[in-house]
Amino acid sequence: MPAYSAPLTDVQFLIDDVFDFQKHYQSISSGEQASKETVFAILEHCAKFCESELSPLNQTGDLEGCSFKDREVKTPKGWKEAYQQYVNDGWQGLSAPEEFGGQGLPLSLGVIKSEMIGTANWSWGMYPGLSQGAMNTILLHGSDQQKKDYLPAMVEGRWAGTMCLTEPQCGTDLGQVKTRAVDDGCGGYDITGTKIFISSGEHDFTENIIHIVLARTPDAPNGTKGISLFLVPKFHLGDQGQVAERNAVYCDSIEEKMGIHGSSTCVMNFDGAKGYLIGDINQGLHCMFTFMNTARIGTSIQGIGSSELAYQGSLPYAKDRMSMRALSGTKQPNKVADSLIVHPDVRRMLLTQKAFAEGGRAMLYHAAMIADKMMDAHDKGDMETYEEFDDELGFLTPILKAFLTETGYESANLGMQIFGGHGFIKEWGMEQIVRDARISTLYEGTTGVQALDLLGRKVLLGKLKTFDGFTKQIKHFVKTHRNTKEMKPMIKQLKRHLRQWKFSTIRIALMAKKDRDAIGGASVDYLMFSGYVAMAFFWAKMADSAYTQHKNEQGVTPFYLSKIQTAEFYFERLLPKAQSHKTLMLKGAKGLMNMDESQF
Amino acid sequence: MPAYSAPLTDVQFLIDDVFDFQKHYQSISSGEQASKETVFAILEHCAKFCESELSPLNQTGDLEGCSFKDREVKTPKGWKEAYQQYVNDGWQGLSAPEEFGGQGLPLSLGVIKSEMIGTANWSWGMYPGLSQGAMNTILLHGSDQQKKDYLPAMVEGRWAGTMCLTEPQCGTDLGQVKTRAVDDGCGGYDITGTKIFISSGEHDFTENIIHIVLARTPDAPNGTKGISLFLVPKFHLGDQGQVAERNAVYCDSIEEKMGIHGSSTCVMNFDGAKGYLIGDINQGLHCMFTFMNTARIGTSIQGIGSSELAYQGSLPYAKDRMSMRALSGTKQPNKVADSLIVHPDVRRMLLTQKAFAEGGRAMLYHAAMIADKMMDAHDKGDMETYEEFDDELGFLTPILKAFLTETGYESANLGMQIFGGHGFIKEWGMEQIVRDARISTLYEGTTGVQALDLLGRKVLLGKLKTFDGFTKQIKHFVKTHRNTKEMKPMIKQLKRHLRQWKFSTIRIALMAKKDRDAIGGASVDYLMFSGYVAMAFFWAKMADSAYTQHKNEQGVTPFYLSKIQTAEFYFERLLPKAQSHKTLMLKGAKGLMNMDESQF
Repeated sequence: MPAYSAPLTDVQFLIDDVFDFQKHYQSISSGEQASKETVFAILEHCAKFCESELSPLNQTGDLEGCSFKDREVKTPKGWKEAYQQYVNDGWQGLSAPEEFGGQGLPLSLGVIKSEMIGTANWSWGMYPGLSQGAMNTILLHGSDQQKKDYLPAMVEGRWAGTMCLTEPQCGTDLGQVKTRAVDDGCGGYDITGTKIFISSGEHDFTENIIHIVLARTPDAPNGTKGISLFLVPKFHLGDQGQVAERNAVYCDSIEEKMGIHGSSTCVMNFDGAKGYLIGDINQGLHCMFTFMNTARIGTSIQGIGSSELAYQGSLPYAKDRMSMRALSGTKQPNKVADSLIVHPDVRRMLLTQKAFAEGGRAMLYHAAMIADKMMDAHDKGDMETYEEFDDELGFLTPILKAFLTETGYESANLGMQIFGGHGFIKEWGMEQIVRDARISTLYEGTTGVQALDLLGRKVLLGKLKTFDGFTKQIKHFVKTHRNTKEMKPMIKQLKRHLRQWKFSTIRIALMAKKDRDAIGGASVDYLMFSGYVAMAFFWAKMADSAYTQHKNEQGVTPFYLSKIQTAEFYFERLLPKAQSHKTLMLKGAKGLMNMDESQF
Repeated sequence: MPAYSAPLTDVQFLIDDVFDFQKHYQSISSGEQASKETVFAILEHCAKFCESELSPLNQTGDLEGCSFKDREVKTPKGWKEAYQQYVNDGWQGLSAPEEFGGQGLPLSLGVIKSEMIGTANWSWGMYPGLSQGAMNTILLHGSDQQKKDYLPAMVEGRWAGTMCLTEPQCGTDLGQVKTRAVDDGCGGYDITGTKIFISSGEHDFTENIIHIVLARTPDAPNGTKGISLFLVPKFHLGDQGQVAERNAVYCDSIEEKMGIHGSSTCVMNFDGAKGYLIGDINQGLHCMFTFMNTARIGTSIQGIGSSELAYQGSLPYAKDRMSMRALSGTKQPNKVADSLIVHPDVRRMLLTQKAFAEGGRAMLYHAAMIADKMMDAHDKGDMETYEEFDDELGFLTPILKAFLTETGYESANLGMQIFGGHGFIKEWGMEQIVRDARISTLYEGTTGVQALDLLGRKVLLGKLKTFDGFTKQIKHFVKTHRNTKEMKPMIKQLKRHLRQWKFSTIRIALMAKKDRDAIGGASVDYLMFSGYVAMAFFWAKMADSAYTQHKNEQGVTPFYLSKIQTAEFYFERLLPKAQSHKTLMLKGAKGLMNMDESQF
């Protein structure tokens, strides 16, 4: 397994040169204490924890996996101890409000933290990650009492949380949820039903687990309009808020999966378990969206992590493994052969991973800044501004989730490909990255679901408002950089793709008026096209910053030069892949729908 | 795990309507006894064996895997018994010469057999598959005595064979082979060295295993020019040709792999093992190419099998699973939701798998017919004709191997994607298809190696001779069908892509004159482009046959209609993917080579 090395130089480049986090932090209230020194100290500390504690547990966790016995889940050796250190160091509350014991730092800092943790050991990171989503839901939709009762222990990390949506008969289609919640007349509900695919549903990290559960009251309307959200603790709380008697929610079994073996995926049985309503009755799906958005952006981190870790794994192999001679003439005459990295196709694979990892990171940090501003507006009660940023993030979320996990899986496979046959052997660890990455395009809404969310809901239903909002930023960049000599080739490409994006969106909208299936026929290609163009924008921004820094310094700085070269590679070799998606998304749905079901 | 159902209707369509195997068989000597009735009886029998014996052992074999103890390998439960039945039924010798106990039927019939076996249970099929390659090598390059000594038991299936090329320090770059062969002065050689990744290197199927081993004599020239080929039996032969004392070749361990768990992947130690030269000294690589070509075409079958099995697995799920309503309006008002297959994007995924499976099958059968003709020329001593067909097959082999395994892996992933989160869970079997398929783009030469073989060796080094030979067939088809009304849209597309293929090939040749790295910079995209265009040709052929049959019959025949629709889907939705590859293969290598190695 490749040992993880935190890309701190790249992080610094993004937060200092590309996005100017200091300036950004001065504009939001949670950023007050986030001085340059504080931020860097936190990142260095986090990097050390990830490199020395979490990374070594990644492969061992895969091999050992979770075990299940008597309704209890045992996590792999050493995982619980690493979590204890995480709690002791106060990592869980980094971005949580100070009134509940958190450090009150900006959300974006938590996102950078999550990326390091998720790259070092994704499966381990799912436990605190899911809990973070549960915390956010309680924070935004819970009552004051619920916040007071549950948040402090969760912020501390002493308790964890989950997200219980899926049932055997439905995942995406939550309108089919059957779990019942019956008012007990004493302020609570009796929850009965079976939930599946519950990540971290049961584990040995914490003394309590707070489940956030979608269920339906007896008189609720059918479909999604009749779903409510409940808080169901594993252990009830005593008078002092301490853990008391056991609630009737149990793990029935854990799934045998292709990957993420260290993460427990639980079947959870609610057998008249006591639950408490979160938010208003029948508003569960609305409240759950907060959780889902957190989770979706969180999953996009898995994509970036797959690209980064696969790159870190295959790069040393490409330098060390000797195979064949360069077609352009021997490069290492004293060696038995040249190293893999002299071969153009191997470089193509390495640069693809690098470009997806670094491009994805830039997209993520941009989204994290929007989340900062959104939370800031929320804290200040400025709901109009909140909605504005929520819309912007809502547009980017499906792109980040689907595009970054698809490209992350591609990178993981390329990493394995560079190893040749050795990539298929467990001990090298490259195949684990592929197996772990594979889930990322499936959970928290498949790529197809994200694509419909983007094209159907966010773009078309919103009458292109969010689309125009995001592309306006690109247009502005194009305008302000059109006379920058070095940037001209990229600006030209960006302009061209922007036109295509707008034009194609309108064409699909027109097609959809005649045939609603044209949306589903276009959606995944539309999303992939959008992803390639959005990432191109961020690569252009990075190239621009690198040119600027480059000019400021004496002579050539290798880091900035390689940034520029990677940006050029992205525009030359990856962005052109958008063209096939453009062609395909304009085909309409007829060719997909005309075959009779019986003839498949 | 999806139960395998042999696609006999499709097979029949190909061998009767598209390729006319009867006519083909009349033209080759091994085809004399292959009457229509014989062929169909064989295929039905084979289908039954695959469906009822091999398919049920596929998932159990994955879960149990091979075990290793005291230099011996135990295959999963029931696998040995299935092999015994395979031997009893005479399947191993189907296409082997009658003089060694085979049935003397055409090679192509063996290929159809291999596809059914490989789709039902790829890992199991590797044991007889590798043996087939060893048999072919002995048949083409062994001495008369070697043939007499080893072939009858191998043809019967009583003995198996392997292919020992890879060593720890080299796989692709066989010039680095270190295994030593020292002349013992008594007609044999003492073989010493370590071979890795030896599929079927040790197992419990047969009483003897015949290893075909690449090694180097002490005075041999460096590199590939100093490699010779040796036959090293696990057990020596007694006076009567029976199994006698043990030879000093042992399995040292088996690999823990991502997939194909039922196939033993062995580290083999040759500790002064007795070996016998095959062919001339220092001509080992040349002789081994026979083996490799068999193995590469064999591996392309894995790609087709992945597409077919993933399709067979995801289709019933897409019909049964209820999720959301069709955007174009409710389709199943009495159900809680519509089935997945009403959604355009799910259909896109299903049709992609179907098009890759059936298109790949057509390409394979075409290649099998060339192999028939090649062997026929060899048997008749017509070496000029032999070379001609060898060239044609040599051009197609890397395309088949790389394009069909890449698309097979894509199909396997789509199959999993259709299942959503359930695809990641072991019990459904879809993730096994992905794990098993993953090796196919790695072994027997990675996609990158195939791409260099195609573009560098077969096309450019051969001065486009084989390229022109193959594309001439497409041109001929275009010419003879340009006035067929139904075929016009496809013919137009074919013509356009042919022009692009030729034009791009010449451009790359010119670029390569200035910069040899342009070959490596273009190779994989060139191969993928070639694959999409070649498959389009075969889809056009199938559409044409379907139209013809369609017209011959009264009314609409659903099978032919769905063939035509799938062909249309291929041209509308898959062939356009060739365009990005075309763009990328003309980019040259500069953008790949300019980054300093230290800056990666």
